[in-house]
Amino acid sequence: MSNAHDRIILPADKMPTQWYNPQPDLPTPLAPPLDPETHEPVTPDQLGVIFPTSLIEQEMSQDRWIPIPQPVLDAYRLWRPTPLIRARNLEKAIGAKCRIFYKDESVSPAGSHKPNTAVPQAYFNMTEGVKRLSTETGAGQWGTALSFACSQFGMDCTVYMVKVSYEMKPYRQILIRNYGSTVHPSPSELTRTGAEMLRRDPGCKGSLGLAISEAVEDAATHDDTKYTLGSVLNHVLVHQTIVGLETEQQLAEQGLKPDHLVGCVGGGSNFAGLVLPFLRRKLDGENIHFVASEPRACPSLTRGEYRYDYGDMARLTPLMKMHTLGHAFMPAPIHAGGLRYHGDAPILCNLMEEGLIDARSYFQTDCFDAARLFLQTQGFLPAPETSHAIKAAIDVAKEAGPDENVVFLYSGHGMLDLASYDAYLKGNLDNFELPQSDIDNALKECPQI
Amino acid sequence: MSNAHDRIILPADKMPTQWYNPQPDLPTPLAPPLDPETHEPVTPDQLGVIFPTSLIEQEMSQDRWIPIPQPVLDAYRLWRPTPLIRARNLEKAIGAKCRIFYKDESVSPAGSHKPNTAVPQAYFNMTEGVKRLSTETGAGQWGTALSFACSQFGMDCTVYMVKVSYEMKPYRQILIRNYGSTVHPSPSELTRTGAEMLRRDPGCKGSLGLAISEAVEDAATHDDTKYTLGSVLNHVLVHQTIVGLETEQQLAEQGLKPDHLVGCVGGGSNFAGLVLPFLRRKLDGENIHFVASEPRACPSLTRGEYRYDYGDMARLTPLMKMHTLGHAFMPAPIHAGGLRYHGDAPILCNLMEEGLIDARSYFQTDCFDAARLFLQTQGFLPAPETSHAIKAAIDVAKEAGPDENVVFLYSGHGMLDLASYDAYLKGNLDNFELPQSDIDNALKECPQI
Repeated sequence: MSNAHDRIILPADKMPTQWYNPQPDLPTPLAPPLDPETHEPVTPDQLGVIFPTSLIEQEMSQDRWIPIPQPVLDAYRLWRPTPLIRARNLEKAIGAKCRIFYKDESVSPAGSHKPNTAVPQAYFNMTEGVKRLSTETGAGQWGTALSFACSQFGMDCTVYMVKVSYEMKPYRQILIRNYGSTVHPSPSELTRTGAEMLRRDPGCKGSLGLAISEAVEDAATHDDTKYTLGSVLNHVLVHQTIVGLETEQQLAEQGLKPDHLVGCVGGGSNFAGLVLPFLRRKLDGENIHFVASEPRACPSLTRGEYRYDYGDMARLTPLMKMHTLGHAFMPAPIHAGGLRYHGDAPILCNLMEEGLIDARSYFQTDCFDAARLFLQTQGFLPAPETSHAIKAAIDVAKEAGPDENVVFLYSGHGMLDLASYDAYLKGNLDNFELPQSDIDNALKECPQI
Repeated sequence: MSNAHDRIILPADKMPTQWYNPQPDLPTPLAPPLDPETHEPVTPDQLGVIFPTSLIEQEMSQDRWIPIPQPVLDAYRLWRPTPLIRARNLEKAIGAKCRIFYKDESVSPAGSHKPNTAVPQAYFNMTEGVKRLSTETGAGQWGTALSFACSQFGMDCTVYMVKVSYEMKPYRQILIRNYGSTVHPSPSELTRTGAEMLRRDPGCKGSLGLAISEAVEDAATHDDTKYTLGSVLNHVLVHQTIVGLETEQQLAEQGLKPDHLVGCVGGGSNFAGLVLPFLRRKLDGENIHFVASEPRACPSLTRGEYRYDYGDMARLTPLMKMHTLGHAFMPAPIHAGGLRYHGDAPILCNLMEEGLIDARSYFQTDCFDAARLFLQTQGFLPAPETSHAIKAAIDVAKEAGPDENVVFLYSGHGMLDLASYDAYLKGNLDNFELPQSDIDNALKECPQI
């Protein structure tokens, strides 16, 4: 393979026209989401308060392939297919014997993989007459993506942004507002949940779980409004499979197979998008190593308990079976705001329990070191979340053999995270080693099911 | 042409391997640069104090094609070839009958077209033993690009950044520093020129002309250091022709020819990179409209005088024949910092005098309106400089016929310009209509040649 083909570009007409749904292929069936009050499986009708019918159908679908509607394909084509890039300079810098590729989802309008699901979520809501979408955002990537998607389909959008990110990343709000959306720091006074939290703790910096509560409450209390989530749920992961489906074609075009697939995990959608399309091959015996990378300050996959828990702090969402640090867990304010979620996508947790995922956790300074090495070799500035994938990919690549292929997901750029890079350069980043007692305490508040 | 091909991607092995040099094809020969003291044509030896031999040769070359060295091609392939994109949503929004395309140079590591010349400039300096490069930067795009390029070739880099941009765009400095470079606000105390300006006016916000003086002085007073310029000079424009050469192939692949080529002009390098490769076709009688767009607050092409002037405020550079507002001209602090240069590239001015360029000037609020429309239709956030190209492209497209093709250069993204978009949303942008007396006064300081 010559240098001329280090950027593997899929022709536009090879872009997938269906998403992959892993549910029929899971070795054990997914544990159903439960009603937070009765602990009975939730019904589509209950979900219908905050989600449109078409997305609820996708959430529960047992169809392996789900067609992508034409207007969604048209919007995808504003930036897709995305390139798969051989990171030859990085390989040299770390003395890797293997090949390293990265799938570049930073080229989207929002600068991350998030528009892959924001666009269909906005589209399906629009087709069912919804006028406004509410959502939460951690690092700001998801809020930006949904704002972009809503501007594509002429919808209104209200974003509850975790306050620590709102303050650390002022540029995100400006971008969201320029798309035409409204953004509030969470906790806000606009919802019962937010106002209550502010009474208890006026200095509260928020969490993704809390922001979810606010956005859900907004949707549940307004007729023309539905709620959207940027990760965790099955249909979100399904939309993200376009990433892995493209990657599979791109590697095949070069006559290559992936040996290691690496991604960072917050709620799990970008990682799932990369690995799920390879699940059947892995189950069929192909030796494909799925490596999930998460912050040591919020180690849900590596140290969380696999049990039913709420998706949000205010216990408004259905109970989901997942690896959780407890819905009351308040992670330290690390710079990878998008990885500060107490749980993980149920589909990923199911695979984790089957022993199909190798999860690792890293300190943020080690991830920023990896990000800077990437910047100075490959030229591009990664998001702090993405730096966790780079760090894990480097670790994996150092041990991989000469004919192996390490593919990591470059989930987003760091152009709006430069304040974090400033703190990094100034040596102002803390590493948080989480005491087991913190986890134990938070888990005490989980329901006994 | 179906939607499937709205993103026209050139295969990696079709990337040009030579730059186009317009000098042999200019209808009238280029007026030579003159020694600032003697007013005699400068010799290569004189330029050798601040430039390496290979770049001086390119500056004066009469060869139509200049080969791109392999290490430069390898670095280009980190992001090139860049896509040519049909802006179908923008077409609809403005009711255009024609097709609108944009050549997307925002996908580079630095987020603009600037690395196209930063990479070869760093490379050629390195091959001649230079250890450190000095330069100025206006909006910060060029400083970022050169920092990226120096990191690719293991060189040190010192950037003098116009103070108004340094303060308006804090993220730029952080990015430059993360590449491993040093950045100083200009005027600085580090050079004789900067220190003198600060004594005269301690609150001086700087200008590109002044920052050039500082960077040139730095190079001239350090043996291991050479100077680099991000625009204006012939060799810079030559390196940028890869943009137009790719565009020509991309259009041809679709069976299309360009009717209107549009770009913004500060020093002129991005616009020149797009249009110069079409110069011979235009001179051969093909009807291709070259449209240059500049800020009304710094209207060098539309209101400047065509005469010899210094490239910098301190009169250290050779005299160049160009459209100039006077080297002492201090433009208003508009948000398109990269378009605040008192002159223009001599090659462009030569073509302007031949009547080959249609230059237009716009108020910044009109350009931000165009940028926001682009954001809300095509999804991507343009740099304030690029917004001038979008505004002009929209104007041209509204008048263009149904089979015509408008191609504009999307020179950079605006992810690091969100403070400007904040001011725009808040209604805090001023428009500056320049009084003729300001121009007349500044021109009085030009040499009489």
